[in-house]
Amino acid sequence: MINVAVLGYGIVGSGVVEIIKKNGISISEKAGQKICVKKILDIRDFPDSPDRELITKNSDEIMEDSSIGIIVETIGGTGIAYKLTKDALSRGKHVVTSNKELVATHGPELLKLAKENNSNYLFEASVGGGIPIIRPLNRCLAANEIYSITGILNGTTNYILSQMKREGKNFDEALKEAQARGYAEADPTADIEGHDACRKIAILSSIAYNEFVDCNNIYTEGISKISLADMKYAESMNSTVKLIATSEKVGDKIAARVSPAFVKSSNPLYNVENVFNAIIVKGDAIGDVMFYGRGAGKLPTASAVVADVIEIVKHWGAAGGYDWEVKNQDNIININDTETRYFVRLKVKDESYAKEAVEKVFGNVEWVKIYGDGPKDELAFVTGKVPEKEHIRAFKNIEGHDSVIEVSNTIRVLGD
Amino acid sequence: MINVAVLGYGIVGSGVVEIIKKNGISISEKAGQKICVKKILDIRDFPDSPDRELITKNSDEIMEDSSIGIIVETIGGTGIAYKLTKDALSRGKHVVTSNKELVATHGPELLKLAKENNSNYLFEASVGGGIPIIRPLNRCLAANEIYSITGILNGTTNYILSQMKREGKNFDEALKEAQARGYAEADPTADIEGHDACRKIAILSSIAYNEFVDCNNIYTEGISKISLADMKYAESMNSTVKLIATSEKVGDKIAARVSPAFVKSSNPLYNVENVFNAIIVKGDAIGDVMFYGRGAGKLPTASAVVADVIEIVKHWGAAGGYDWEVKNQDNIININDTETRYFVRLKVKDESYAKEAVEKVFGNVEWVKIYGDGPKDELAFVTGKVPEKEHIRAFKNIEGHDSVIEVSNTIRVLGD
Repeated sequence: MINVAVLGYGIVGSGVVEIIKKNGISISEKAGQKICVKKILDIRDFPDSPDRELITKNSDEIMEDSSIGIIVETIGGTGIAYKLTKDALSRGKHVVTSNKELVATHGPELLKLAKENNSNYLFEASVGGGIPIIRPLNRCLAANEIYSITGILNGTTNYILSQMKREGKNFDEALKEAQARGYAEADPTADIEGHDACRKIAILSSIAYNEFVDCNNIYTEGISKISLADMKYAESMNSTVKLIATSEKVGDKIAARVSPAFVKSSNPLYNVENVFNAIIVKGDAIGDVMFYGRGAGKLPTASAVVADVIEIVKHWGAAGGYDWEVKNQDNIININDTETRYFVRLKVKDESYAKEAVEKVFGNVEWVKIYGDGPKDELAFVTGKVPEKEHIRAFKNIEGHDSVIEVSNTIRVLGD
Repeated sequence: MINVAVLGYGIVGSGVVEIIKKNGISISEKAGQKICVKKILDIRDFPDSPDRELITKNSDEIMEDSSIGIIVETIGGTGIAYKLTKDALSRGKHVVTSNKELVATHGPELLKLAKENNSNYLFEASVGGGIPIIRPLNRCLAANEIYSITGILNGTTNYILSQMKREGKNFDEALKEAQARGYAEADPTADIEGHDACRKIAILSSIAYNEFVDCNNIYTEGISKISLADMKYAESMNSTVKLIATSEKVGDKIAARVSPAFVKSSNPLYNVENVFNAIIVKGDAIGDVMFYGRGAGKLPTASAVVADVIEIVKHWGAAGGYDWEVKNQDNIININDTETRYFVRLKVKDESYAKEAVEKVFGNVEWVKIYGDGPKDELAFVTGKVPEKEHIRAFKNIEGHDSVIEVSNTIRVLGD
């Protein structure tokens, strides 16, 4: 029998306990041994919980219990979770987590510590909730050189954008709706500003390219500036606006970013709605392969945690790990040196004079008309594919032009 | 260093050799040891092949070479491939294959033989080409009770149906086009009659439900009777026609079938076009998760084979296997006892008299009108959800009615 301790009896942690109880028989069969939750760490009281007798406030009771071989860390953040993970790994305990912030921040150190102590640090649940992605990327696609990863990695923002598109709600209304349904937190910053998606693409990139990708080096832009007008233009281009996290191997460096982007209807990501996530991986042998499912939620995420626990029990001491080489030099290409196309929306004083100016500044552009009646003083177009720094220069130029009142919005176009 | 022998230097076999050469460095890194192709078995001559010096016609040279630890079987079929696989497993060699026919037919025996000899028999490439599905199903979703699996598992038929829908070609033209492009074989029976998809759903079901599902017990219907008229009706219902393979756990039995079906645009399978495959797995914790990619082709399939080879090398002697319990009693529910809805198209003599008859025989139905001008003597409708045996009775009844000339087609509707 293998004893597990769960650190943090929140949504995911309590889901882990629930699944191990509910599917205990088949889980034990698959793992080859009985898996049992022996202790739960939480500072709160849960007098009504069926698991109340397992709950302790003293982490020593867990760390010093040599009969506990696996720690499930579902506390989150980089504070106490970091301290306890280090403590557990140093003692040779295996650690499984859904904590993307910790993995993205201290992954290399914790993986090294695990290796030194012959323990495993697994984190399938840190990306894509219950969608199997980290193990398939590392194992099933192991025969491939991975070229790129592109996905919708944040369910909260995808829900908000779906609501805007389908229900015609504006951003603030859609955010409130997401909060009311429990899809967004009271402080939604990490989601809507793209930080959550950024940590996830950093983790996936580290796995795919076999070197640590620091999320602090990835350009990140959220969705708060997306308006219903942008949605309508997207629709008229047979596209939709999604928060896209992407990374691509370019020579021995990596181009990566998180930002809203126009996604064409022919792209499988176009149809990914509400809280669903999807990740497209491109490899040299496999071509494109997509993984799709619920990117968050109690049981989906908990089921990914439990799958990691089963993996460790099944291959005790040999479940494998990752080596995240930390390169000294920066391995991320500066966003200004990466190429993209932009959708641009302008408020203008004089349409034909402004059109002339646009073509002078941007060269050949693709003019976009909104379905039905668009505002009279607005011009919209899609630029060619050039480096971001040239776009910045062009945006400044056009903003300063006599014929233009303002650049209302600029949104990247997901390229082929 | 681990030596591999490849049996069958056809499309997939030569792809395996190519990938091991091309990505040798990163593959060896991931596996922890160098992987080397030592011999290739084929009865043909390949005087111009770069691998010609590895090719032998004598299988003893491979079987009796104790330095060869892993056999890749890409011969196909259940003849010589079966004999050589048994021989290899009996000698304690590990076997990796893309041969779905052999796995679906002799899986339980070969898995048992592997277990007895401490070897592995892995077959990720047998379903979904390069799409990671067998390992994710078995490992990443291990914490779930799997409720159902539904997918587009055959690229040839999906290409044909896509061509019919998009280009307005009829079935015969689309089949010829598929053959010309190498997507269909000269004898396309196994694909178009659904046998290939049937073997694949049998393999996936055996993994998901942890008991052997015999493909011979699964009701299988191909796509040759699908017409452009059916496509147009589907379109007018915001649906499309796909060859769907599905299995579902119902109590301690399994309901399974392969047949064409109307798929609604809200279903993620709706957008799976051309040679792509997609598989939706429903589990108690994860909800729906979908895997999507190229279901066939040299390099995608070969990359799945090589991933299995890497898995064996990485976990030498402990890569795990499957137990396919063979139940004595039949574990598949008779198709006549499963429930479904049908789209029905009738040629009629007298529309209002026939409508009356339909409502008498089928009860409440949903009438379907084709966009634009449909044929005058045709009626189409969708039935309620009742057991197949009741449908059969109703089809006979309506066919015998005065007002009806013929039942032109009946196609299942993929349910919610």
